[in-house]
Amino acid sequence: MSRPPGRKQENNKISRELFVLTYGALVAQLCKDYEKDEDVNTCLERMGYGIGVRLIDDFLARSAVKKCHSYSQTADMIAQVAFKMYLGVTPSVSCSSAAGNEFSLILDKNPLVDFVEELPAERASLCYCNLLCGVIRGALEMVHLAAEVTFLQDRLKGDAVTEIGITFLRKPEERKHKR
Amino acid sequence: MSRPPGRKQENNKISRELFVLTYGALVAQLCKDYEKDEDVNTCLERMGYGIGVRLIDDFLARSAVKKCHSYSQTADMIAQVAFKMYLGVTPSVSCSSAAGNEFSLILDKNPLVDFVEELPAERASLCYCNLLCGVIRGALEMVHLAAEVTFLQDRLKGDAVTEIGITFLRKPEERKHKR
Repeated sequence: MSRPPGRKQENNKISRELFVLTYGALVAQLCKDYEKDEDVNTCLERMGYGIGVRLIDDFLARSAVKKCHSYSQTADMIAQVAFKMYLGVTPSVSCSSAAGNEFSLILDKNPLVDFVEELPAERASLCYCNLLCGVIRGALEMVHLAAEVTFLQDRLKGDAVTEIGITFLRKPEERKHKR
Repeated sequence: MSRPPGRKQENNKISRELFVLTYGALVAQLCKDYEKDEDVNTCLERMGYGIGVRLIDDFLARSAVKKCHSYSQTADMIAQVAFKMYLGVTPSVSCSSAAGNEFSLILDKNPLVDFVEELPAERASLCYCNLLCGVIRGALEMVHLAAEVTFLQDRLKGDAVTEIGITFLRKPEERKHKR
């Protein structure tokens, strides 16, 4: 987790508030563009995917992490290094399947919703932070790990915590055909 | 410029890369939504305005700055405190009118365009970072300063620097009628 020398960490940091409000503007725009929550969710996930695909290089360069040897290590890396680096929070991780390929990232506090009180009644199916799922999926795909990433619980919808589920798909070659 | 005690600065910081890529996704979406660059620019400025209106409270609380007594002080505050706090860069400031109400913020490096190489030919009139103009205008309006904020130069368009022009409008009551 050492940083490459000569790169100032401060220069890579910006205020979260500006990001959170800009993200809010993006979601609001998509809600104008698409009537159905499902379409907004899909669009956010796709945008996130595109971001993850580009962000992975930055992550690998800045984190200087070593190759992970298990899904469990990968999930820990996402929570403890990537979330910390990009969002300033560290979700807790739990494995939720006997097969060892399903994990939950649990956020007591979701930094992306700082200025959001609750979803409007007509947007009850909106996955407000679905961009994050796409980012994780896109970044994982670039290190040859196919995964499904979805919100399992969301404090914006009245759940006690926000929970992101990551299911690593064991056979990426099958997955290609599915998409 | 002291910070209120007890608030951890680290918790307010996120990685710039995620913000820059998310902002890029927002601009790309607006380019899909609107055919004309002018409409994208207007939309970005309006979104920024809404953000500035909300961000000013955060700025005043976190910066603990004193009231400014001149346009010049205000311009310096935007450059040296606000830009530094929210974007991690400090533009240089120059006054560009004898009347003392026009200022330029000059950015050698624009952190919002890290991943953008150049504007596509069909988007030559796009003000990619126009959100920033709106943020500044919205925040100023909340401290009872009417201003026009526009990009005067843009490295994305081949200019040597990126320059944001701020013109403080001396008679806000007239301005209301204009809008």
